[in-house]
Amino acid sequence: MTTPPTEAGLRRLPCNLVDRAIEAALAEDLGLAGDITTDATVPPDATASAFIVAQQRGVVSGLPLAEAAFRALNASVIFKAEITDGMLITRGKSLAHISGNARAILTAERVALNFLGRMSGIATLTRAYVNQVVGTSARIVDTRKTTPGLRAIEKYAVRCGGGHNHRSGLFDAVLIKDNHIIAAGGPLAAMQAARSHAGHMVRIEIEVDTLDQLREILPLSPDVILLDNMSRDELREAVALNEGRTLLEASGGVDLNSVRAIAETGVDIISVGALTHSAPVLDLGLDFQKSSA
Amino acid sequence: MTTPPTEAGLRRLPCNLVDRAIEAALAEDLGLAGDITTDATVPPDATASAFIVAQQRGVVSGLPLAEAAFRALNASVIFKAEITDGMLITRGKSLAHISGNARAILTAERVALNFLGRMSGIATLTRAYVNQVVGTSARIVDTRKTTPGLRAIEKYAVRCGGGHNHRSGLFDAVLIKDNHIIAAGGPLAAMQAARSHAGHMVRIEIEVDTLDQLREILPLSPDVILLDNMSRDELREAVALNEGRTLLEASGGVDLNSVRAIAETGVDIISVGALTHSAPVLDLGLDFQKSSA
Amino acid sequence: MTTPPTEAGLRRLPCNLVDRAIEAALAEDLGLAGDITTDATVPPDATASAFIVAQQRGVVSGLPLAEAAFRALNASVIFKAEITDGMLITRGKSLAHISGNARAILTAERVALNFLGRMSGIATLTRAYVNQVVGTSARIVDTRKTTPGLRAIEKYAVRCGGGHNHRSGLFDAVLIKDNHIIAAGGPLAAMQAARSHAGHMVRIEIEVDTLDQLREILPLSPDVILLDNMSRDELREAVALNEGRTLLEASGGVDLNSVRAIAETGVDIISVGALTHSAPVLDLGLDFQKSSA
Amino acid sequence: MTTPPTEAGLRRLPCNLVDRAIEAALAEDLGLAGDITTDATVPPDATASAFIVAQQRGVVSGLPLAEAAFRALNASVIFKAEITDGMLITRGKSLAHISGNARAILTAERVALNFLGRMSGIATLTRAYVNQVVGTSARIVDTRKTTPGLRAIEKYAVRCGGGHNHRSGLFDAVLIKDNHIIAAGGPLAAMQAARSHAGHMVRIEIEVDTLDQLREILPLSPDVILLDNMSRDELREAVALNEGRTLLEASGGVDLNSVRAIAETGVDIISVGALTHSAPVLDLGLDFQKSSA
Amino acid sequence: MTTPPTEAGLRRLPCNLVDRAIEAALAEDLGLAGDITTDATVPPDATASAFIVAQQRGVVSGLPLAEAAFRALNASVIFKAEITDGMLITRGKSLAHISGNARAILTAERVALNFLGRMSGIATLTRAYVNQVVGTSARIVDTRKTTPGLRAIEKYAVRCGGGHNHRSGLFDAVLIKDNHIIAAGGPLAAMQAARSHAGHMVRIEIEVDTLDQLREILPLSPDVILLDNMSRDELREAVALNEGRTLLEASGGVDLNSVRAIAETGVDIISVGALTHSAPVLDLGLDFQKSSA
Amino acid sequence: MTTPPTEAGLRRLPCNLVDRAIEAALAEDLGLAGDITTDATVPPDATASAFIVAQQRGVVSGLPLAEAAFRALNASVIFKAEITDGMLITRGKSLAHISGNARAILTAERVALNFLGRMSGIATLTRAYVNQVVGTSARIVDTRKTTPGLRAIEKYAVRCGGGHNHRSGLFDAVLIKDNHIIAAGGPLAAMQAARSHAGHMVRIEIEVDTLDQLREILPLSPDVILLDNMSRDELREAVALNEGRTLLEASGGVDLNSVRAIAETGVDIISVGALTHSAPVLDLGLDFQKSSA
Repeated sequence: MTTPPTEAGLRRLPCNLVDRAIEAALAEDLGLAGDITTDATVPPDATASAFIVAQQRGVVSGLPLAEAAFRALNASVIFKAEITDGMLITRGKSLAHISGNARAILTAERVALNFLGRMSGIATLTRAYVNQVVGTSARIVDTRKTTPGLRAIEKYAVRCGGGHNHRSGLFDAVLIKDNHIIAAGGPLAAMQAARSHAGHMVRIEIEVDTLDQLREILPLSPDVILLDNMSRDELREAVALNEGRTLLEASGGVDLNSVRAIAETGVDIISVGALTHSAPVLDLGLDFQKSSA
Repeated sequence: MTTPPTEAGLRRLPCNLVDRAIEAALAEDLGLAGDITTDATVPPDATASAFIVAQQRGVVSGLPLAEAAFRALNASVIFKAEITDGMLITRGKSLAHISGNARAILTAERVALNFLGRMSGIATLTRAYVNQVVGTSARIVDTRKTTPGLRAIEKYAVRCGGGHNHRSGLFDAVLIKDNHIIAAGGPLAAMQAARSHAGHMVRIEIEVDTLDQLREILPLSPDVILLDNMSRDELREAVALNEGRTLLEASGGVDLNSVRAIAETGVDIISVGALTHSAPVLDLGLDFQKSSA
Repeated sequence: MTTPPTEAGLRRLPCNLVDRAIEAALAEDLGLAGDITTDATVPPDATASAFIVAQQRGVVSGLPLAEAAFRALNASVIFKAEITDGMLITRGKSLAHISGNARAILTAERVALNFLGRMSGIATLTRAYVNQVVGTSARIVDTRKTTPGLRAIEKYAVRCGGGHNHRSGLFDAVLIKDNHIIAAGGPLAAMQAARSHAGHMVRIEIEVDTLDQLREILPLSPDVILLDNMSRDELREAVALNEGRTLLEASGGVDLNSVRAIAETGVDIISVGALTHSAPVLDLGLDFQKSSA
Repeated sequence: MTTPPTEAGLRRLPCNLVDRAIEAALAEDLGLAGDITTDATVPPDATASAFIVAQQRGVVSGLPLAEAAFRALNASVIFKAEITDGMLITRGKSLAHISGNARAILTAERVALNFLGRMSGIATLTRAYVNQVVGTSARIVDTRKTTPGLRAIEKYAVRCGGGHNHRSGLFDAVLIKDNHIIAAGGPLAAMQAARSHAGHMVRIEIEVDTLDQLREILPLSPDVILLDNMSRDELREAVALNEGRTLLEASGGVDLNSVRAIAETGVDIISVGALTHSAPVLDLGLDFQKSSA
Repeated sequence: MTTPPTEAGLRRLPCNLVDRAIEAALAEDLGLAGDITTDATVPPDATASAFIVAQQRGVVSGLPLAEAAFRALNASVIFKAEITDGMLITRGKSLAHISGNARAILTAERVALNFLGRMSGIATLTRAYVNQVVGTSARIVDTRKTTPGLRAIEKYAVRCGGGHNHRSGLFDAVLIKDNHIIAAGGPLAAMQAARSHAGHMVRIEIEVDTLDQLREILPLSPDVILLDNMSRDELREAVALNEGRTLLEASGGVDLNSVRAIAETGVDIISVGALTHSAPVLDLGLDFQKSSA
Repeated sequence: MTTPPTEAGLRRLPCNLVDRAIEAALAEDLGLAGDITTDATVPPDATASAFIVAQQRGVVSGLPLAEAAFRALNASVIFKAEITDGMLITRGKSLAHISGNARAILTAERVALNFLGRMSGIATLTRAYVNQVVGTSARIVDTRKTTPGLRAIEKYAVRCGGGHNHRSGLFDAVLIKDNHIIAAGGPLAAMQAARSHAGHMVRIEIEVDTLDQLREILPLSPDVILLDNMSRDELREAVALNEGRTLLEASGGVDLNSVRAIAETGVDIISVGALTHSAPVLDLGLDFQKSSA
């Protein structure tokens, strides 16, 4: 299960998702009175031209959202991306050139940069983890620890960084944790309940904290086993016990320092909450060229 | 303009905002099929009891959202906060005790923690900045560099940390930047246009990059002047030139190391984008007690 | 993979789904002027009492929606179900007793019965299919041929009838059909593309029309193989070729007469579009008892 | 009041209704992650060409929705209808040709066919009833027993089949049933209450179960009288008693076998719940031609 | 068709309409930051008590909306109406007493009074028209010249004033005007088209400008004829020509001075746009009693 | 602070606001069945041409909404404004020429005129007030006594009339009234609470009823002081006491007769509730030219 951090063939962000996210963000920033500064100071027919410039090196994600922000204000604004999502940009380079109605560009600037900066921040951090595990068979995946309301967008940013996605939510896959096992009356009962209730297109993962639990659960043939907070030695032994039968996911205590050693234990999946809950923004700016009426 | 990082008298988060945010977050996590793991494994009438526990020291923000998440799933869940928003919590201490329907608690757990962790992360970082400027007359304020869709919630978290809020969006105050000045034909024209178009309840701020610009603008009597990316020497001279006539805001190049020195220049306001765009999550967990049917 | 048509332990319908469906249905029926007949003729404080009665034998589904319809009009209406979703009812028997404000009961009647009748119709038809395959290892599952806007509700009705659910939509599982295979450049390329793009919690199914295609695809180890429009002899041979390695789904040409023979070929899954696209309504009525003020 | 099943001059479906219905159906099918199969396997710029083909004979309804589904995914898809709503199509004939972006066509296929199949099913069943009463003066009309959320669309499908529409909902016409009469204190009081409260643009219908009730109500001059579950002999006598004064509607016990005889009693209106609550889907398929990049 | 301006038995405003209107109005007034004045100055647990007092004589309408506004802010606020919608209030009298959480009362005050003042203004003006025609057989009705977004609420206010409602919108009744007649090819063709397309529960009205047109149209037996901008002599002659066959509606040139004379011509309906497009607000105030903590 | 009633440079209405308002108004008028009269009588491809004509003299406001109404029904309708918002029109003159699809023009007519008539009514009344104070330094401003749901649109109409806007809602500025002062424990405490809680971009206004209160509050340096219901002599004395330090707003008892004398007292701001709560509609009509197919 090799996961080369590819810059091509990225699965795309649905259009309606982009439109809705931009609409909500603009509504929040514009209120009912709009951009009162720009409306007061910039003539309606003034034009402008600007570059989005990287203030630091990183992986780009969110260009379709940035474009949509400007065009939502004025459909005739021209947005020319100079790079594509998933690609690396270096400091001082331009991500895109924007030209057209000056009011639209000034008013949409912050919403465009807020999306682009955050998403690129996630992609950049993801890429750092992915780079650490190059050559191993481990995939770096995200978690449900995403910003409320932005999960699909953040999961796309993880893909831009070369990572993969864990389940989308509580609805599309089963993940049986310790409390579910207790409530169901043991791992066997929990697995049977899940198999009986879930459709045949739903994967079932189950969490174990110890190697003893792993031994108890392996014969139940879940699709994936989550090895929670295990030491590297335990992970290595888990891989050995598994004999390639089921996918093994490691989680807990993963950071940029530890991730390579964890990958080298032979686990298939390493899930990292920090990708989405603690990635700093990628610093980007909008540099205007001389505007002309 | 002293701003003591107070833990009392916090201006509150509107209820409808809380409800809408929780509804959106749950919709995203539950989809149309719901929590298929919990529904399959946990009996409908099982009960549970759990504590939200801090895994690290920080300032709490978001308890009303956490409560709303659990109660949205089942209105009879009891959420007993053991602390209030804006207070400091130490590692290992409990923020709240939750008891009631086990399915509701398990299903809402992630949404509750996602809000609480992010908001507390912002409050904690804000408090760190506020602590640095204690004893000076500077207020720490946020920017419009917030997570799209969550601005009002993040601005509340900044207040929980003892910070103050800059304008809410483009609609409620005027902030004239260099491009507006160029488009309007100079600072005087821009100020006049803003005064003529804006209502009398709208404050007007104008950005300057140099002391020469400051000298040109001071006689125009804006409500606030933004001193962008100035050195500490320039800031000190700006404070002297101003002679207490208008509020002065410093922005750019502010971090936890530099903020005290900037505050000591005598500026009234220091705006910090990182409060909302790069605060790491505060690590929190939900610890279940033995559940009982 | 036995699927006994059980009447207990049904995975439930999410509450917010029920509320939203009822709100939309009432909005459509009430418009902005409301129930002008009832408002004109029935005193505001009149009360009534009624039974929902089965006019024919069938499997019940939709009681939570019926209850929600009455209670949306007046929260003090008492709805006492006399049976639960997933159970069989015979002609002339009562499903529920409703009492309280007469206006609310009269106004909500049609919305309640429209949901209950349609959903019970689906559950009843599903049960008929499930009964046909008792003793085989085949599961009866639905398709995406559902009523636009009501998919999650109809999939719940299928579960009430003892059936299981196929994927929820295009977003939660991969189903590679002939056009995808052609576009990708063959089944191997299609499977690899799917594996590389989809997360590890996503199941992958691929469609084959012939046994030759099946032979080509079996080594690729998809999670499920869809055997489209095959004869029973072909299905039997497919089961033999598979040697239990992957789940096999039969689709096409399935009706109540043919389903048992198809199940007896040894396939694991039989998908039936008619469950949701052509189930006739179950005939139900609301019988009022003497109303009293 | 002759009602020839005309294929021209059909009152149209409002545009915004079409757009909203398609948006909701696509949202349900695409979730937040979109069509993960197509995105993984089909190149973004691949094109395709396909026909929508009737697998059985029937009356077409829903082409504007099918077109909107494809174009919602990609506005440059070309949808060329080869027939119009309300027309009869025979087995094997094409309803429309679609060409353009392959991803858009594959992703929208099911939503387009779900609407088209269901609506054509209703139109086809309606046409069967309408054909049965040709030459009589009876109109075939629908009821409020429609699919929740799709009433306006289903009522349009009834018109496509040559039927007419009963009231849209509880808000646009008065229909006084037995419970209203009891609550109001008799038919005279109910009619007076309705006349006093309803505007002058609102029609008033009242239900009777017996000829005695009819005799009591005729002098009150309602706009329409609903003859509920009467035998053909009773219907005939009702027509005679009425002497052409008011419109008479027959309901209850209507099927394709009985409808002609009911029409021949001379009633003006025959309402048939089955048109919308039990019409089977019209079987349609999307046949792709060789796709080309 | 006598229409006594009754104060009892008013057809009610649907609950969901009230809730949605209040939610929209509060959202507009509170934005995302809420009532920043009240939050800063009034303790969270302070209580208050106030009366809504009429500053001028008029007919009350909108109490359910006022109550909903206060209770939307805090469900424990007690709203005790001292009068009911449709009743006359004199200057200085109290409409309602409100007590409970002080923040909620202060924050909701303006929204509550905005609805109550406008609706009572409409009811008061309607009552003035209705009083003018007492003893004639004419009904005073509204038009579609309502405030966008508030039509159902304004039509309710008209009923509170003793008026009646014309059609709700373009969807629930046919009103054939001169342009429709021209487009259809004459009044006969227009009436036939309307009869053929509209359901049997839809009333048909047609507009005439001259007595000649009236003579041409009377034999076509529309449900209502609109006599547009006719002189009183023409109206009288129209009434004579009609011989009681169809309802006659007068419109155009109606004001409080002319309405009685128009009613005395014998027309059944007089429609007055001013009821909803030009009614001045009824002056109301919220008088606080000494607040207590 | 001179406020010349200019007809140029008007701050514009945000596009999304226009679109949403039109969508809501059309939804209310069209319901789910649409314009049944026009659909029945006007051929789908008929075209028409019409002028919007002023039946009385006034100031125009709302042309972008009128245009949006027609174009929402059919995007190819051509709307040619012959005047711009904020300009004076005389009786009999045309505001705009509309041409294109006849159904679209007929169906959108009422929604377009409802917005245009109401908004122009507000602009016209505002202009009357503004004209009265020409040559003084007073601005005419609106209040929060606006139509629920239409505040931003009505505030734009006030600007079209040459007026200015007070705060947008409770969220964007502080206005401390008597009840806030009592709850906070006096004016000093209230001002301090407001300063401490509000951001530095928020203006603070405080209400006084007497000159004694004014003397107490002046040293607290609020941004604006509201002089409520003061006599002209009191206002004059307030202006003298203020010595130009803070903005003074007069409110209460303002009408077209009194406004000039109030302005001449030297106050800066005069707020007038009647601008939005009691402006009569400006009478406008749609005059069709001969339509052609």
